[in-house]
Amino acid sequence: MCLVVVGSVAYDGVETPHGKVERMLGGACTYISLAASYFTPAKIVAVVGEDFAAEDVDLLASHGIDLEGLERVPGKTFFWAGVYSQDMNDRTTLRTDLNVFADFRPRLPDSYRSQPYLMLGNIQPALQRSVREQMNGLRFAGGDTMNYWIRDYRAELLETIREWDFLLINDSEARMLSGSPNLRHAAARILDMGPNTLVVKRGEYGAILFRREGHFMVPGYLLEEVFDPTGAGDSFAGGFIGYLAEQGFSPSKDGIPAEVLRRAVIYGSVMGSFCCERFGVDRFRTLTRAEIDARFQEFKRATEF
Amino acid sequence: MCLVVVGSVAYDGVETPHGKVERMLGGACTYISLAASYFTPAKIVAVVGEDFAAEDVDLLASHGIDLEGLERVPGKTFFWAGVYSQDMNDRTTLRTDLNVFADFRPRLPDSYRSQPYLMLGNIQPALQRSVREQMNGLRFAGGDTMNYWIRDYRAELLETIREWDFLLINDSEARMLSGSPNLRHAAARILDMGPNTLVVKRGEYGAILFRREGHFMVPGYLLEEVFDPTGAGDSFAGGFIGYLAEQGFSPSKDGIPAEVLRRAVIYGSVMGSFCCERFGVDRFRTLTRAEIDARFQEFKRATEF
Repeated sequence: MCLVVVGSVAYDGVETPHGKVERMLGGACTYISLAASYFTPAKIVAVVGEDFAAEDVDLLASHGIDLEGLERVPGKTFFWAGVYSQDMNDRTTLRTDLNVFADFRPRLPDSYRSQPYLMLGNIQPALQRSVREQMNGLRFAGGDTMNYWIRDYRAELLETIREWDFLLINDSEARMLSGSPNLRHAAARILDMGPNTLVVKRGEYGAILFRREGHFMVPGYLLEEVFDPTGAGDSFAGGFIGYLAEQGFSPSKDGIPAEVLRRAVIYGSVMGSFCCERFGVDRFRTLTRAEIDARFQEFKRATEF
Repeated sequence: MCLVVVGSVAYDGVETPHGKVERMLGGACTYISLAASYFTPAKIVAVVGEDFAAEDVDLLASHGIDLEGLERVPGKTFFWAGVYSQDMNDRTTLRTDLNVFADFRPRLPDSYRSQPYLMLGNIQPALQRSVREQMNGLRFAGGDTMNYWIRDYRAELLETIREWDFLLINDSEARMLSGSPNLRHAAARILDMGPNTLVVKRGEYGAILFRREGHFMVPGYLLEEVFDPTGAGDSFAGGFIGYLAEQGFSPSKDGIPAEVLRRAVIYGSVMGSFCCERFGVDRFRTLTRAEIDARFQEFKRATEF
C-alpha cells in the first residue's frame, strides 16, 4: 500500500573518520523514501531549488518513488554540512543553509490525499499537522521530530503528535519530550500524549518499540565498518513504515498485530545498518531486497535464545 | 557443579542520585558468588581484615557459599568509595584503601582444587594465573580484568588469559585490549588471544557473546529505577558462570552447546539487572530463583520476533 513521505530533500557535506564528501544527496525525505521503496510504493512531498541535479532525480525515480509532490522553485536546495567525531557518536554542524526549504509549505497533489500510510520527517510541527489534515483515508500516520521543536515549539508539537499513530525519536529526545530520564517512564508518558506506538532509536545500541501492552527491544546490528551514520535514523524510519505499508494492516488504531510491528522494527534496524555502510545514500544504489531479507535473518540468528 | 570464585571482598562507600551509603558489603568476589549461588554451590577465595562483620559472613553463608577459602588476617578490609554521575553512566573514585588486599596471595584449600568451574574476578593477572595453576580438574575457567591491567601489565595479562576458556570484559576494555575501535574486529582479535568465549558487557545497553562461529546480542533489561549500578558487572558474571556450572557441561573447550551459552548470557543480564535495583548487595537478601526465572522469561518476551 502506498506511503506518503514528507520532509527535506537536501545536499549534505559530510566528514567522517573515513573521508569527506563536499556535496551529496541527503535529507530526511530522501533517506526515508529510498529505504521505504524496497517495501512499498512511496510518494514524496518536498521542495528543491534550481540546482537539484538530474542524476539525483533519476536515483529517486529508479526506486519507483513518485515525484509529483517534489516541488522545484527558484533558489538553491537546502544545504547542510557537518563533521563526525572519531567514534561517530557525535557530530558538529558546520553549516545550515535552509535556502528554498525556509519557505516550504507542503501541498499534497490530489493523487496523494487518499493514501493510507504517512511518514512525516522532521520539519516544523505545524507543517506536519497541515499535511496530515490534507489527507482523508489514513490508516497509520506518524513521524519524527527533534530537540529544537521539543524545546522551543512544545505546545505546537504536542498538538501535532496528539493525532499520530506512531512517533519515532531517539533516546535523548524521548527523555526531553517526557521530562523523565528513565526510558520506561519516558515511554509511558509519551504514550499518553497520543501515539499508541513509540519507537525509540538508540543509534549503535539498537531500538525499543513501546506499546501499552509491553515493549520490544532490538540490539544494534554489529557493522564491520561504519562509514557514515548520516541518514541512519531516517533509513530506520523508512524500513519501519515501509514494511508496515507493505503488510497493509487495517485502519484501527490498534489493528496491527504485535509480531508485525516487531518485524517492522527489525526491518528498520536493517535499513539503518545498511545506510551506514557507505557515504550518504550510496548503499541504496546497489542494495537489493534479497540482501535486506538476509540481514533480517541474521538479526534473528544473533538474538534468539 | 561447584564453582570457585576468586577476587575482592570489600566494603564500599557509594553515592548515587538515589542516596548515599557510607559503608556496605561489596567487592567482585562477593557479587559474583552471591549471584552464582542461585544456580550452583560457590566456594570463595578472598581476604578480609579483623573488621569484617559477622552479619556479612552470615549473608554469604546463608547463600550456601563455602567460606573455607575466606582468609581473615590482621588489619582492615579493602575499602572503596565512589560517586556516580546523574545518569549513572560514569563514576568517580573517591577513595581506594587496599588494606589487607594489598598482600592478597590466593591459596586454595584442598577441597577447592579439583572443582570444575573457576571464575577469576578482577585482580592482578599473575595472581589469577597462580590460582588457575592450583586447580587440577577444570572444565571451564576464565575471568574478568580491567583497564589498569590491560595498560600497565599487558604481557602478564596476555600470558594469563591465553589459558582461559572465557573472558568477560566491558566494551571499552575490549577496545583497549584489542586495539580496535570496532567491536566485531576487537572480538576477533581477542578470540585469537586464547579464550574461545568472549562476553562483552555494555552496561545499560546489554551484552554480546562472541564465539568463532558467530555472536549473540542481548539488549539491557529496562529497569524502572536504577538505584546503584555497583556490582552489576560482577553479578552478570556470577549469573553467567553460575548457570553454566549448574548445567554442568563437559571439559572440552568447545563442549558447551550454543543455546546453553546464550541462556547463560541472559541469566547474566538478569542478575546484573536485579543488582541495580537496590544499594550494594541488598537485592540478594530477598531475591528468589522464581523471580530470576520470571525475568528470564520477560527477556524472552521482550526480544523474540
